[in-house]
Amino acid sequence: MIQVGIIGGAGYTAGELIRLLLNHSETEINFVFSTSNAGNKVSKVHQDLVGSTDLMFSSEINPDVDVLFLCLGHGNSKAFLEAHTFSSSTKIIDLSNDFRLEVDKKLEDKVFVYGLPELQKEAIKKAKYIANPGCFATAIQLALLPLAQVKLIKDDIHVNAVTGATGAGTSLSKTTQFTWRDNNFSYYKPFTHQHLEEINQSVKQLQSDFNSDIIFMPNRGNFSRGIFATIYTKFEGSLEDVKAVCQEYYNDAAFTFISDEDIHLKQVVNTNKCLIHLHKHDNKLLITSIVDNLLKGASGQAIQNMNLMFGFPETEGLQLKANFF
Amino acid sequence: MIQVGIIGGAGYTAGELIRLLLNHSETEINFVFSTSNAGNKVSKVHQDLVGSTDLMFSSEINPDVDVLFLCLGHGNSKAFLEAHTFSSSTKIIDLSNDFRLEVDKKLEDKVFVYGLPELQKEAIKKAKYIANPGCFATAIQLALLPLAQVKLIKDDIHVNAVTGATGAGTSLSKTTQFTWRDNNFSYYKPFTHQHLEEINQSVKQLQSDFNSDIIFMPNRGNFSRGIFATIYTKFEGSLEDVKAVCQEYYNDAAFTFISDEDIHLKQVVNTNKCLIHLHKHDNKLLITSIVDNLLKGASGQAIQNMNLMFGFPETEGLQLKANFF
Amino acid sequence: MIQVGIIGGAGYTAGELIRLLLNHSETEINFVFSTSNAGNKVSKVHQDLVGSTDLMFSSEINPDVDVLFLCLGHGNSKAFLEAHTFSSSTKIIDLSNDFRLEVDKKLEDKVFVYGLPELQKEAIKKAKYIANPGCFATAIQLALLPLAQVKLIKDDIHVNAVTGATGAGTSLSKTTQFTWRDNNFSYYKPFTHQHLEEINQSVKQLQSDFNSDIIFMPNRGNFSRGIFATIYTKFEGSLEDVKAVCQEYYNDAAFTFISDEDIHLKQVVNTNKCLIHLHKHDNKLLITSIVDNLLKGASGQAIQNMNLMFGFPETEGLQLKANFF
Amino acid sequence: MIQVGIIGGAGYTAGELIRLLLNHSETEINFVFSTSNAGNKVSKVHQDLVGSTDLMFSSEINPDVDVLFLCLGHGNSKAFLEAHTFSSSTKIIDLSNDFRLEVDKKLEDKVFVYGLPELQKEAIKKAKYIANPGCFATAIQLALLPLAQVKLIKDDIHVNAVTGATGAGTSLSKTTQFTWRDNNFSYYKPFTHQHLEEINQSVKQLQSDFNSDIIFMPNRGNFSRGIFATIYTKFEGSLEDVKAVCQEYYNDAAFTFISDEDIHLKQVVNTNKCLIHLHKHDNKLLITSIVDNLLKGASGQAIQNMNLMFGFPETEGLQLKANFF
Repeated sequence: MIQVGIIGGAGYTAGELIRLLLNHSETEINFVFSTSNAGNKVSKVHQDLVGSTDLMFSSEINPDVDVLFLCLGHGNSKAFLEAHTFSSSTKIIDLSNDFRLEVDKKLEDKVFVYGLPELQKEAIKKAKYIANPGCFATAIQLALLPLAQVKLIKDDIHVNAVTGATGAGTSLSKTTQFTWRDNNFSYYKPFTHQHLEEINQSVKQLQSDFNSDIIFMPNRGNFSRGIFATIYTKFEGSLEDVKAVCQEYYNDAAFTFISDEDIHLKQVVNTNKCLIHLHKHDNKLLITSIVDNLLKGASGQAIQNMNLMFGFPETEGLQLKANFF
Repeated sequence: MIQVGIIGGAGYTAGELIRLLLNHSETEINFVFSTSNAGNKVSKVHQDLVGSTDLMFSSEINPDVDVLFLCLGHGNSKAFLEAHTFSSSTKIIDLSNDFRLEVDKKLEDKVFVYGLPELQKEAIKKAKYIANPGCFATAIQLALLPLAQVKLIKDDIHVNAVTGATGAGTSLSKTTQFTWRDNNFSYYKPFTHQHLEEINQSVKQLQSDFNSDIIFMPNRGNFSRGIFATIYTKFEGSLEDVKAVCQEYYNDAAFTFISDEDIHLKQVVNTNKCLIHLHKHDNKLLITSIVDNLLKGASGQAIQNMNLMFGFPETEGLQLKANFF
Repeated sequence: MIQVGIIGGAGYTAGELIRLLLNHSETEINFVFSTSNAGNKVSKVHQDLVGSTDLMFSSEINPDVDVLFLCLGHGNSKAFLEAHTFSSSTKIIDLSNDFRLEVDKKLEDKVFVYGLPELQKEAIKKAKYIANPGCFATAIQLALLPLAQVKLIKDDIHVNAVTGATGAGTSLSKTTQFTWRDNNFSYYKPFTHQHLEEINQSVKQLQSDFNSDIIFMPNRGNFSRGIFATIYTKFEGSLEDVKAVCQEYYNDAAFTFISDEDIHLKQVVNTNKCLIHLHKHDNKLLITSIVDNLLKGASGQAIQNMNLMFGFPETEGLQLKANFF
Repeated sequence: MIQVGIIGGAGYTAGELIRLLLNHSETEINFVFSTSNAGNKVSKVHQDLVGSTDLMFSSEINPDVDVLFLCLGHGNSKAFLEAHTFSSSTKIIDLSNDFRLEVDKKLEDKVFVYGLPELQKEAIKKAKYIANPGCFATAIQLALLPLAQVKLIKDDIHVNAVTGATGAGTSLSKTTQFTWRDNNFSYYKPFTHQHLEEINQSVKQLQSDFNSDIIFMPNRGNFSRGIFATIYTKFEGSLEDVKAVCQEYYNDAAFTFISDEDIHLKQVVNTNKCLIHLHKHDNKLLITSIVDNLLKGASGQAIQNMNLMFGFPETEGLQLKANFF
């Protein structure tokens, strides 16, 4: 049993990590750090855990845990690691966007590896520090990487994606208030979402001559969980070719699958899966990609990375029952 | 055209009043007072009004308006009226619970009349100051008043009602956050909701020997608008008798109707209606009552009261298209 | 008071027509034809109308009404008109897609005019037969027509739009079942939606040299009403230029408005409005357009057309209170 | 590994069983019988299972499986067992209401044991045939049994409960259509719900002098999963006494827990838990009880019963990650 520490324990992603770790056969939660909740039961915040755990939030940090998850707001992970020292054997998985880009990946002697198993599983296995990918970034990369691998992205990529209200974090705000969000729909950050950078970086890692635009429209949907992304581009090859490329690319993927049928968001909600569907019309290739933003898009992928880093079975703790309805 | 002033213009009930008044043939909105929004367009807060009005929020109060609506938090109306002076001809309709009870109804020389048209339409027509009923209180009274009128309530009354998220006001809070409320259900204030007092007062006004308990369980539903209330009590008479009593009582009601069929909440959402359905099983009489909490339960009823006070047709500005879906 | 007949009275669009016509000062509903519901109260199907009308569904058709609305499934309007004869003075507004295209617009001596007031108000005023536009088609055209008018659409147009469950009609189906649709998201008919033809036709009517592609991804959202469409294209001019063009184009529009702020779907739900927002990033112009699919996208626009055809004020019966929450 | 057969494989409860069994360490699904879907992949109907299983629906029944789950409509289980013969060693768990009552529990030589572990765990361990409790019945019994055990139910019991749309089964119907159910609320079967019989039977099993009325109002909520039940009765003892009684009663329960804090539905959605909260006001005791209707209220409890019957750990395959948001 490895010892696990969690920093920023009151947010959505920390809650999901705790839910997953409690059912993981190889881990013990050593501490859940939260200054505002220290001394309270974890189940006071993550209330579905009543009956599941008596764990308390802690104001103390154990620097000798085997693995540390950082569930802090973007920008705060770097500051936290500069202010705190951990054992040289402590592995760290950061869920923020602080270390995802090549230009950001080093902090003193720490070098962060981008933690998308479908891109670089071997590097993750050897990594000590992981920058866990963004949620939109995960869904969109998993749609694009097979094509990039065979250097077949030759034109602009048009992405339209919709995310649930958990994507906005736990802070109270107008656009996450029920009366605003219920039965509503809206967009945000058109063409400028911060995940574009990590997507471009990964696509270029596989297809170095990639120089098309990724035109990305993110939307807010009236549901709590999940990302539904449609991605299209001009493509001259046949649908069968693309399917073969994708099947090959995801042949040994633990959680990413190609669906022959049309897909809809709830197929992956409350699971660590990504489902991909391919469709072609005239010269346009349409790739649909769905993930749960809090699982494959955040905490589930973080556990998947932990499994790889510690040599546990990749799916341990992640064979989840979908909610589906 | 009468001149209308609104105090507390940024909340849900003020928004509904503005929506209704803009389509009312006899009114002109003179000012919408909001300290926090003064100088902004009303459509910046009530955003469906883009294209409908160029009205601005004001930090100035015109003391000579013909009618003033107070859309303040409970407890604040009294303080506001103590601090501000209006023309002796200004009629006032208060939407808070500050003046609803006999013990509270006087403020200096002002005497507030409880503004439930189905209880006392003639008193409202002559009133200068109106205490507009509560939302739960409206739904529940409209279920009970016909029986009270014929002195037939003889046993405890069991009320279970569910309200939408607009019932909690516009302040951000955990239980009105989308991720908490969506697909959720909960209760609050069991047996002690503050509307019980005005309900008891009205029932006793019609049936002076009424001394049973009203046992009231309020619930929070995962929708934005509406109150669905089921009310049962032991009752020895026949269903036909009760139907006749209710039909008679609501014979000239402008917005309250008896439905022969089962009813469901969306039949009244975005209307000023109350629908009542009667059912009997063994010795139990079940009365179901539905209203839109922001309309018949608040701003619609306030306009209905204004219509009565000024001699306008009772339904003016209130023949609303239901949303229904 | 003109006499109105409705064919296909049990569907969503007929229900909306009835709701609107009951509050219209110049119309009387002469009959609502529905074979399956003949003899039942209209309020048995459109249940929010309990208390509003005692109208019955009829199995008889009065061929002398002043105006007839056809609310039949696509393909059935033509068959219906071939089988039934109406007075030569009866005006007809068809809500299906049977007569929208130039190639389809004639049926014997009847010539249908495409009923988009923002495109050709004068032609509608003189028309006797109207082909009412599709819902997606309305939202998308209203985004594109101002630019087409000044011949400024020069590149491919990318449209992503999401519609509510009422868009699928009243027939029971898996994708409109609550347990499937709630909290879900999916696409349908990628790149091939039937409304593309009428959109292309109108754009070319204003900009005859238009020969770019309209690439349209329609989606199913987990709400009942409304269409949210984002539309982008390469554009070299300034945002100010486009705003000026749109403001000019919609200067005298009764229901279409430009919003300076970002827009969200519920601003127009249960109204006849279309709101447009303009945004520019680098060389991409983003136009967002929102309508209620059943009102401006169907029955509201049909009433607007009727108003124009009979010389009534264009907004009569259509100044609707938004649901908003 | 025991071999499992499922009859009626296309419904909600069969889908949940399959999801649970795929992650259960001691079971192998031998066949999923569905005449209408025979030959299709199970993931074509239960679409979240894409990537999880290649299992096919079968038109053949293996009469030698170790355990058989009947997921048939009420009334059909008896007919099915009369028409089919199974090995004498095959254990059967029926999810319908065909065998729940004493008068119904025998079919030829088969005697069905009522499968509520919190009522009679030892009897279940020895049982060969199980009648799995109803969903409402589970939530309500778990609220009442501790009091019945100490003979403290002395007055009428008032139950108000709301269930999700999955409670109505997979058949298409108006009240489970999205446009009807979304943002709606309604009741059904007031005072006469069929689960009352099994509730009364269990309460009397523990408190033989129980002769009060259980007055039950079931409601339809606008969510997919879960039952929220509030139950109150006159009660003279202290809240502390009741808490102690309940804690004692559920001391070794695997999935039923007492919450000191108010509870809300989503705490148990997608888990096999029941949470109970106790509250007292004047002489009224309020017990709130929440379960997921498809898990603790159906398929989860069926697996729990299977675990007990086969000597597996009671929680095997049932430590589920809540959806929560």
